[in-house]
Amino acid sequence: MGKPKKKDKGIVSREENYSEWYTDIVLKAELADYSPVKGSMVIRPRGFAIWERIREALDDMIKETGHENAYFPLFIPESFLKREAEHVEGFAPECAVVTHAGGSKLEEPLVVRPTSETIMYEMYAKWINSWRDLPLLINQWANVVRWEMRTRLFLRTCEFLWQEGHTAHETAEEAEEETLKALELYRILAEEWMAIPVLKGVKTDAEKFAGAARTYCIEAMMQDGKSLQAGTSHNLGQNFARAFNVQFQNRDGELEHVWQTSWGVSTRLMGALIMTHSDDQGLVVPPRLAPDQAMIVPIYRSDEERTAVLDASAKLKSSLKEAGVRCRVDDREQYKPGFKFNEWELKGVPLRIELGPRDLKENKAVLARRDTGEKTFASLDGVGETVLGLLDLIQKNLFNQAVAFRDRLTREVTDYDDFKAKMEGEGGFAISSWCGQAECETRIKEETKATIRLIPFEGGEAKGDCTCVACGAKAEKTAYFARAY
Amino acid sequence: MGKPKKKDKGIVSREENYSEWYTDIVLKAELADYSPVKGSMVIRPRGFAIWERIREALDDMIKETGHENAYFPLFIPESFLKREAEHVEGFAPECAVVTHAGGSKLEEPLVVRPTSETIMYEMYAKWINSWRDLPLLINQWANVVRWEMRTRLFLRTCEFLWQEGHTAHETAEEAEEETLKALELYRILAEEWMAIPVLKGVKTDAEKFAGAARTYCIEAMMQDGKSLQAGTSHNLGQNFARAFNVQFQNRDGELEHVWQTSWGVSTRLMGALIMTHSDDQGLVVPPRLAPDQAMIVPIYRSDEERTAVLDASAKLKSSLKEAGVRCRVDDREQYKPGFKFNEWELKGVPLRIELGPRDLKENKAVLARRDTGEKTFASLDGVGETVLGLLDLIQKNLFNQAVAFRDRLTREVTDYDDFKAKMEGEGGFAISSWCGQAECETRIKEETKATIRLIPFEGGEAKGDCTCVACGAKAEKTAYFARAY
Repeated sequence: MGKPKKKDKGIVSREENYSEWYTDIVLKAELADYSPVKGSMVIRPRGFAIWERIREALDDMIKETGHENAYFPLFIPESFLKREAEHVEGFAPECAVVTHAGGSKLEEPLVVRPTSETIMYEMYAKWINSWRDLPLLINQWANVVRWEMRTRLFLRTCEFLWQEGHTAHETAEEAEEETLKALELYRILAEEWMAIPVLKGVKTDAEKFAGAARTYCIEAMMQDGKSLQAGTSHNLGQNFARAFNVQFQNRDGELEHVWQTSWGVSTRLMGALIMTHSDDQGLVVPPRLAPDQAMIVPIYRSDEERTAVLDASAKLKSSLKEAGVRCRVDDREQYKPGFKFNEWELKGVPLRIELGPRDLKENKAVLARRDTGEKTFASLDGVGETVLGLLDLIQKNLFNQAVAFRDRLTREVTDYDDFKAKMEGEGGFAISSWCGQAECETRIKEETKATIRLIPFEGGEAKGDCTCVACGAKAEKTAYFARAY
Repeated sequence: MGKPKKKDKGIVSREENYSEWYTDIVLKAELADYSPVKGSMVIRPRGFAIWERIREALDDMIKETGHENAYFPLFIPESFLKREAEHVEGFAPECAVVTHAGGSKLEEPLVVRPTSETIMYEMYAKWINSWRDLPLLINQWANVVRWEMRTRLFLRTCEFLWQEGHTAHETAEEAEEETLKALELYRILAEEWMAIPVLKGVKTDAEKFAGAARTYCIEAMMQDGKSLQAGTSHNLGQNFARAFNVQFQNRDGELEHVWQTSWGVSTRLMGALIMTHSDDQGLVVPPRLAPDQAMIVPIYRSDEERTAVLDASAKLKSSLKEAGVRCRVDDREQYKPGFKFNEWELKGVPLRIELGPRDLKENKAVLARRDTGEKTFASLDGVGETVLGLLDLIQKNLFNQAVAFRDRLTREVTDYDDFKAKMEGEGGFAISSWCGQAECETRIKEETKATIRLIPFEGGEAKGDCTCVACGAKAEKTAYFARAY
């Protein structure tokens, strides 16, 4: 805490330095740490516990919609990557390559998977013969490696954890339906679990996945006015099926290539979570994802008080657990209550429960909300219901706050100078008309650092006589522009 | 199914060729498949669903005993591996090495983790300062790579999935206690979940983990009379703490190296599961781990019967699910009941439920056990309880069968010729006296292919005047010898 600008928790303010604020939160809340391997990070227990809850929520939805988990090899023969032309062009520059193993040089180098289309579809070609084998709905939770030069904890690391769904279908329509279904699961995960509002839409050709026919995405607005791509779902058409010869005998007895999709979200979501809700006091975690939803801090001076308060704390914990609240008692002797308040605020526990001798006498406790700082008294009778209700309120409040913030930074922009000023200034989404030309898109990116985050599902076709915000030509699309992570 | 010796399910009998039987089961039950990457396999959905249940059961126990999950990098700088002398000697020959990434040659090659002691303890050195930071109880679920020449599906693959617990403690006693606690979790997992009886004991120096002070293990007896090491727990002493400088200020204010443990089980357990319970008809899965515990097969001829039977099947499924049974209805139109019976027998579903028009009239169903082949009628009233009871019986029966088999092949052997004959013949465990000399242990291995699987916790000290089974010198230990996977 050498630098004077940092507050008592060792966190610089967002206003002071947004980027440093983010790193401070990740490190001080012990979510992750830098590792000795350049570009790779260590996910520490408090960070991993949140990721486990994200994973569990999504895994449940993935299974409920008929998908099964499987596991494919980490290593991919270099030649596989080359079979789909766009795919290799997109990924080859980022690959880590194993050239030696077991003490000898390998005949063919092995690429550490940057994504698993190629290794999976080689197997799909073997497993799929007839329309009876379709749809094939497989998901994998795995680590992947993409060699990045400029890395940031959670947001961009050489190795990251993710889930990748890979499905094969009889028809183009089914594949499209599946692509959108996966995207909807991501929206539910983001909005209902992570309390992060997202926009859904389609990427332009410049931004789509290497090898896909179409890429859909969800985009979220961070507190610095930059957009974060929180999940993507690709309709692969028959591109990979042709490259890997994944064919099936259709209902008419003819051989046909399958129609495929792939979709993924990663530990990058942790970055989105942190940047959406946290504040200058530290991490804020939505109750549905918090490993500890409530932390009971006992307050006492004398030994007599200590016994009574610790006893009541244990009882309070039991009633809360019974009601389904994840909670603990911070009964560490070596720290004072004020220190504990600070620590759990920094670490993002949604609700702090203070319990002292006077409270006990009045059969109540103090509930302090992490999101608003508000303190209320609650009777110890029926405290389970009270706390559950409050956690629900906090979850909703975090979502509503994020919606309000996002909406305030989302506006139609028709003038290019205004567009530039907004991107240079507060950021956010500019809803602007676009001529549909890749050259113009590139120019906008070069001049403003803003990219088309998506073309929305509704209102994506340009209206009437609109003209492109940049070139003034007749507009084809209405797009959401923003600077992005 | 070209080879005449295989039965209708395409599985050779154990008697005919045990090794081929095993592979047939893995492939035909669709648990795993060979991948295009030599030595790596694909875990298919039916295999992965069993692994997920194993993982969940163990993960619950790991968390209940105070451990937290985290995630450390896949890549380890080559220099780290070299810091602990025995460790590098043990693992260097099996390492896969990344020499190029992002299009350039790396300054220092990166090893793909064969195990994570070195990368984790580098971080522990940073995180641990005082006795207040101890114990540190961390677990990781991850993929690891060990370049093996002769691989077998699940049992020995270049890449495998596992869990590795890594803890640090204030005292030698605490570390020893932790090592044994982890071993006990493995025994519970093996016996109570997987229905695999195991022996607990300590490894000889020749068989211990590279870098450990002591290695404890659980060993299980397979149907071919070979032993399989199903889990290991290592007391690392201060070896790695010294190599990685993991020090803490103890309660007396002095700097001291921490005492560490590490322990792991892997997807190898899938091999143990298959080889303990399966038979010539296919896979057998204990009910507690079976993704489908019961499969309802509707039987009908006319359309009228079809409607009634499918309707009743759906109702039956609902009541079973309500009772907590994992079950499905196999309502595929394109297959006959006999085909379905065969398929679910091959795939190891513990209980098949046949439901036909005549059964319906009598308000009952046929329950066919996978373990014994026994068929009974059950009333559809209260069928949930009946099925739960039967699943429990199956679970116990599988365990008891395995205990009986193991015990039959476990006997004291005092004569070396007899020892050799037994190892060459039916195999199993020979409980024999041993002089305690590594040279003698090596000679026994060379002459009989048997190794000391463990020195048991009870009765491990040689009694009175016993002499070594091989060299005749005064015995130090009573050991369990067997050929092993």
